[in-house]
Parts: sequence; structure tokens; C-alpha cells
Amino acid sequence: MVELSHVDASGAAHMVDVTGKEASARVAVATGTVRTTEEVVSLLRSDGLKKGDALGTARIAGIMGAKRTPDLIPLCHPIAISGVSVEFTLGSDRVDITATTKTTDRTGVEMEALTAVAVAGLTLHDMIKAVDPAAVLDAVRLERKDGGKTGTWTRPEDR
Amino acid sequence: MVELSHVDASGAAHMVDVTGKEASARVAVATGTVRTTEEVVSLLRSDGLKKGDALGTARIAGIMGAKRTPDLIPLCHPIAISGVSVEFTLGSDRVDITATTKTTDRTGVEMEALTAVAVAGLTLHDMIKAVDPAAVLDAVRLERKDGGKTGTWTRPEDR
Amino acid sequence: MVELSHVDASGAAHMVDVTGKEASARVAVATGTVRTTEEVVSLLRSDGLKKGDALGTARIAGIMGAKRTPDLIPLCHPIAISGVSVEFTLGSDRVDITATTKTTDRTGVEMEALTAVAVAGLTLHDMIKAVDPAAVLDAVRLERKDGGKTGTWTRPEDR
Amino acid sequence: MVELSHVDASGAAHMVDVTGKEASARVAVATGTVRTTEEVVSLLRSDGLKKGDALGTARIAGIMGAKRTPDLIPLCHPIAISGVSVEFTLGSDRVDITATTKTTDRTGVEMEALTAVAVAGLTLHDMIKAVDPAAVLDAVRLERKDGGKTGTWTRPEDR
Amino acid sequence: MVELSHVDASGAAHMVDVTGKEASARVAVATGTVRTTEEVVSLLRSDGLKKGDALGTARIAGIMGAKRTPDLIPLCHPIAISGVSVEFTLGSDRVDITATTKTTDRTGVEMEALTAVAVAGLTLHDMIKAVDPAAVLDAVRLERKDGGKTGTWTRPEDR
Amino acid sequence: MVELSHVDASGAAHMVDVTGKEASARVAVATGTVRTTEEVVSLLRSDGLKKGDALGTARIAGIMGAKRTPDLIPLCHPIAISGVSVEFTLGSDRVDITATTKTTDRTGVEMEALTAVAVAGLTLHDMIKAVDPAAVLDAVRLERKDGGKTGTWTRPEDR
Repeated sequence: MVELSHVDASGAAHMVDVTGKEASARVAVATGTVRTTEEVVSLLRSDGLKKGDALGTARIAGIMGAKRTPDLIPLCHPIAISGVSVEFTLGSDRVDITATTKTTDRTGVEMEALTAVAVAGLTLHDMIKAVDPAAVLDAVRLERKDGGKTGTWTRPEDR
Repeated sequence: MVELSHVDASGAAHMVDVTGKEASARVAVATGTVRTTEEVVSLLRSDGLKKGDALGTARIAGIMGAKRTPDLIPLCHPIAISGVSVEFTLGSDRVDITATTKTTDRTGVEMEALTAVAVAGLTLHDMIKAVDPAAVLDAVRLERKDGGKTGTWTRPEDR
Repeated sequence: MVELSHVDASGAAHMVDVTGKEASARVAVATGTVRTTEEVVSLLRSDGLKKGDALGTARIAGIMGAKRTPDLIPLCHPIAISGVSVEFTLGSDRVDITATTKTTDRTGVEMEALTAVAVAGLTLHDMIKAVDPAAVLDAVRLERKDGGKTGTWTRPEDR
Repeated sequence: MVELSHVDASGAAHMVDVTGKEASARVAVATGTVRTTEEVVSLLRSDGLKKGDALGTARIAGIMGAKRTPDLIPLCHPIAISGVSVEFTLGSDRVDITATTKTTDRTGVEMEALTAVAVAGLTLHDMIKAVDPAAVLDAVRLERKDGGKTGTWTRPEDR
Repeated sequence: MVELSHVDASGAAHMVDVTGKEASARVAVATGTVRTTEEVVSLLRSDGLKKGDALGTARIAGIMGAKRTPDLIPLCHPIAISGVSVEFTLGSDRVDITATTKTTDRTGVEMEALTAVAVAGLTLHDMIKAVDPAAVLDAVRLERKDGGKTGTWTRPEDR
Repeated sequence: MVELSHVDASGAAHMVDVTGKEASARVAVATGTVRTTEEVVSLLRSDGLKKGDALGTARIAGIMGAKRTPDLIPLCHPIAISGVSVEFTLGSDRVDITATTKTTDRTGVEMEALTAVAVAGLTLHDMIKAVDPAAVLDAVRLERKDGGKTGTWTRPEDR
């Protein structure tokens, strides 16, 4: 029968025991999108021509957010993140975010990648909210993971 | 001309000076949705009949996440949150999240409400990802805010 | 009917709304005891004659622990602590801990005082555990609180 | 001569060097008790029949507290916790807490288990204090540890 | 007699009680310098022409560092920072850092300004250390503070 | 061509990928100086004859600061620190600080040693600032590092 991994037989939450799992190289890629207005994207672009601090700030927030994952997600293991990158692509009225996280630990870095995307997106929201309080953080999701016992998982096309 | 509030004339990020703003009661409401499968929602429901630890864990994570907002969002002010609640509504293949945050400080609690939603959603993702790694956190957005100099803002219907 | 304040009508945890409460001076005093061996107390005493770093370390840990209370206790409000002190009294085979916390905020500092005692006690445990792994942290409890709408509360003698 | 491990020859505190120790599987079990009233235990029980959020909240706080151990206890090493569980047993006027922590690192997880118990106990205190401000966190202590060079330690019966 | 404010009559550290002090607008300005090589400054400048992420990252780190001050400095009060800015000036072989912090709380923001400078400087060091591991963070000091009972203090010329 | 390691080809900050690096024993030593007055050093000395809490507090702050390095320095990896010590030497009008950090991880502990020095120095500043607000934290720098692929680095005499 299918069961939630973080809830034991009695229904109580616990941090899954990964003591017996092997340390190995693992990678995860997550994405998300901030939907806003053409005016905001135009401001972010011109900022990019000057000092890029709006996108740069969101990038740093995403990287630091990945490191805070075990402080935020109650049942996540504290793990040795060995690399994080956060990239942005500007569309006409949207900013697409991609985060890649790596580790050589006993469990995967999916939550770290998702947290990096969410924190980067929230940070963009914070910086544009005086102009567009209606901005939306959408489609925060895992695209791919590699490594560990279950190996590679790629997002199915129909989800 | 419209400008990003967190970026100064030279394009550099800074924490906006709110020293001169008045402390007053403020409220913000944010929402978001975790899109998953009917199977997962069914597991969350049956869990709800037992001990509710999956949703209960996400609720606590959201409340604690609201308190971590200034640690996560670089240019957010540390403020005195005076109340947080996080609610879930189960749909057939989705979980809708609503967070309400309150303060009596010099600046609003919009980011705190959005962060509560995002962290609650990520926590749900963490707990269901063994069953549905393709789950998506969608539509994280501000619905309403009250208080402060700008008064009440309600999300426009066309966004 | 008597009810738990942090659990709403539906049984869900939330951070109690204190927006309407008045900011006022409040004090809390908590105590606790580390029960150990005469040998350990003797080591702590001689250390006290030199540099006092064992008790000094526990004192600092307690003070810093008080500041971390809202990070640790999920439904505690982040409040403006305006003073903390932590004192130790050495008995023959025990160390008694007293913490006093103060604020001028909308809610009390009882949890801050209790957290200071617990973290100071755990820190002592950490430093003596190579000699006495069986040490016990006992009787962590509130002694007194002043201020706020409910005024002074003093621990009843029969508890 | 017996000496405190965290204090060097000059009496100064330091973080003990474990560079040369071997990484190996280690487990620790700690317990503690919240002494309260029959009325409170009755409220916790009925809550348990509904959504269990009071005990569920304390459980999550304990698990997250274990992860914060190196932030709280000054001389504790940051280690890779590989599993945490926190269990409660309701007595007539008490709640007994048991925490189990695991790692595969260079030093033990005793402090992590003790911190989980203390934070879970303080969280319960926070949630019942409106009804019973006189509740006491008692008998926070190590029951057993396994692994590492010193192997298994079990609490002696006379302590 | 002159005494250290954070050490009581018995020599024990404590967090000074500011309960009775009045909340008022306060400002602090601190500076510091990273001494490095002409090659490094040249890299920082050319980076500035592109995306500015090296200086931008240090700026964000400094702003976030200011908010972490009470987590880092044991006897600092947690206070409501109402504004932070961090500026850099590039010399031929040095980067000068200036941080300005503001509050409307019961105690000053000197430590917050100094911490912002130190964390920004350490972050620059981190990013240039592959090229210049010998870089030095120098002259971290308070330049000026305004507000509070003691009013304005300006750094004397002979220090 | 020489390039900043934390900035990629497009000028964007990222956390350098160390997945492929080998875990090995590494050590770093950093130093710094707090320049103050003879009066202050005299107070620190007499305090040292009593309970040493001023220097003891700064030592604990430095050790805990080393553990917070990845929370403070955006692009630092979270690593398993296996030992930290912080030492002070009192001069006539100065306090010299030395921090030594150790790890067995995939990257070095230079930033951890520098952070320990900076936080210890800022903490001293905090405790003496009522007597000497003009105190300066000077010469925070790396003295030596051992281990890893690049092996031993010793500070050149002319820097």
C-alpha cells in the first residue's frame, strides 16, 4: 500500500531514518515562475543594465534559502550541500527561475532546489510589490533529479 | 516615474527606511495551492481522521516560516508579528492554503503571509514527494492587506 | 469551558492574535536544576576559581537561548526582549539555575525565561557529560511573572 | 585526573577537536516528563481525538529543535543527523517524552536527543500555560547511547 | 569608577536591562576597509560593468548580517531595525565599506552597523580569496551615532 | 586569466560546485586585533582575575560565529566543522585574537576562522563600547591553512 514516508504507522510525523543509506553524488533541478507586468520586467531589465541588484539580490536569497532548508522544512535532514546555482530568464511579463542543487550525502537535494526557487521568487515579489502587489509565484516544481538508489527521475510531460 | 522601492538611484539594493512611518495595526492574507493527485489527497484525508500530522506539520512549518521571513528575504524588516494562522482546504487533487498574518509595526506583513504559504506548501511537498514527486506549488499570491498609510488593497479580479 | 489557547475551535494550532493587547513592562522568573555528582560540582568550583568558562559558557548559552525562543517554540511571538540574566548556585551535587527576562511588548516573557533555563542546563550537561553522562535537568518551571493584563502570578506552594 | 572535556588546560572553553575520530553509526535516546494536571491531560487527549495539533506541534518542535542543537549549545559540533523521532505517552497528570536521534558522524547525538526532549517539553508548556502555568519540565536525561569508540552506555539504575 | 556595562558587580555577563529606556529614532554609521591588490579591484570594477554580483552579494550579506546581530553578539538586544544601507568605494587596492543602520527602539544600532560592515567585508574576502588569500579586513569602527539619551557621538580625530 | 571563483562567466554569483573534491582534514588559522585604551585592557584584566566573563563571552561568541558562517557568507558551503578554538592575548591597549578551525570536509575552513575572529572582536567591541566607543577591529586576516588539494598556504611576510 502507498503511504506517506514522513508519517509512521501510528500517523505521527518523524524524520525518516537514512542512517543506512549510502552517501553518493546527487543533483536536483527545480523551476518556478513569477508572473508580473510588462512594466515590472522592463524595470528589471533596465536595472540589469545598471547594477543588476534586483535579480542579483533574488539570486543570493535563493542560494542562502537552499542552505536554510532544514531550518524551514521540519522533516528535512540537514545535509552537506556541495553546490547551488540560481538562474533567471526574463519573459515579456514573467521571470522564470531555475535552481540546481548538488550534494554527496545520504539523501537528495530536491527540497533544497525547490526552496531556492521559492525564496528567490518571494524575494522578487518583495522587490516589485510596490509596483505590482498582484504578482504571483507559480509552478514551483521539481524538473529532474539524479543519483541515489532511485536514480534519475524526470518530470513526466503530462504534469 | 515608477521605480523599484528596494533599489536606490544608483541601482543598489537597500532596506527601505521606515523610521518615519507610524506603527499601526496591519493584516495580510495570502493564498497558494499544492496540485497533486487524488491518491495523495486521499492519504492526507485518512491521515486527518487519525492524527492529522501531515497537515499539522505543514501548518506549524508555515507559522514558523512567517517568523523567519526577515532571515530569508534580504530586504524585509524584522517586525513584531502579533498573530499568524494557516488553513488548508482539501480539493479532489489539490490542497489550498490560506495564511493570515498580523502586526502592529511600521511596515506591512505581506511577505510574512506569502512566506507562510510557501513554506507550508513546500512542507506538504516534502511529505508527499515519495508518492508524488511531480506535485506543484502554484498561485502563491497576496489576496488582501489592511492598515498602514495605503490602507486596504484587494486583489483585482483580472489578476 | 477551559481550552488550550494555542488550539482553535477546530483543533488546529495557531499563533494567538495579540494585536489588541497593550504593550507594557513585563518580567518573568524561571528556575531549574542540573543534578549531577559531587565530583562534577567540585570541577565546576575549581574552574570558577580560574576562569569560570564552564558556568560562563552556560550563562551565555542561556541568554542567547532566550533570544532564540520564537525560533524554537512554534507558537511563540517574536518579542522585544529588553533584559536577560542567568544565575547559578552550586550545591553539593547540583547546580541551580535562575533566569529573569524582561520586555515591554504585547505578550509575556515566560517562555523566554524557561528557554534560558533549559538551554543553560543543556549546555552544562554538554560540558560535564564526559564525566557524568547521567546528569539530569530537573524542575524547569516558572516561579513568577509580573505585568500585562493578568498582573502578578506567583508559583503556588503545592506545585 | 578527571577533567571537563570542553575546558582546556588554561580553563578556556573550546570545541573539542574530533577531526581524528571515525565517522560511524550512532544512536541516542533521551527522555523527560512534563508534570501538569489531570485537566490538562484530559484536554490533550480530547484534542488527540480531533486533530492532535497540541502533541503534533510539540513533536515537530522537538524534531526541529534537534536540528538546532549546534546553534543553541555553544560547544556542540554541527553534525549530520540522519533520523529523529519524538514520542509522547500520556499519564494521568503527566506527559512522558522520548526522543531518539541518529547520525553517521564523528561524534554522538546525545545533546540532539536531549535538546529534542527539552524543546518538545517547552512547547507543551507553552500550549498549556494558559490553563496550567505551574507545569514543570522534569527529568530530562539520557537513557542510552550506542556507537562510536566508547560503544553502548545505558543509564545506571541508581541515577 | 568606570565599569564594563555588560558585566555585573560579581563579574557575570548579562543583557543590560533597557526596559526603562525610551523608544526613539537612532542612527549609527560604521566603516571598514578590505585591503587587497590592484588586480582584485580591477576584477571587481569590470564585474561592476557587467552584473555587479560580487559587490552586490557583499551588500546583501551586510544588510542580512545587520539583522542577525542579536544571534551573533551574545548580549545585544533584539531590536526593530528600520533601515540599513551598505555602500562600497573602490580605491586602487582597497574597498572601503560604509554601513548606516536605523531604529526606533530602546537601544542603539551601533553593533548592527559594525556587524553589517564586518559581514560585507568577510563576504568580499570569500569571493576574492581564490585570487588574494592575503586580503585583510581593517579598521572596522564606529564613525557616528545619533539619538537616544546620550545624543550624537562623533569619532574623535585622534582615534 | 585570473577570475573571481564565485562569479560565473556571465558575472552571476553562485556557490562553487565542490561535489568532485575529496573530503580531507583541513585547518585554518586567522587573527585580528581590537585596538582600544589602556583603561579598557585594565578592566578586562581585572575581570580576568574574577570570572573572566568578558573574554569568555567573546570566546563563546567566536566559536558560535564559526558555526554560523554559511548563514552569514552567502556563497560559503555548509561544512562539518570538527574543532574550533579562540584565544586572546592582552597587550597594553589592544586585544589580539587568534582562531583555529578544523574540518574533514570537501572545502576549507578559512571563512570559518575569519568569521570566528570577527564575531569575537565585535563581541568585545559590544562589551567595551560604553567605555570606549572608538575601539577598532583591525587586521582580520588569514595566517595559514593546511590540507586540501592546494596544501599549505602561509601568509607572505610583505602583506
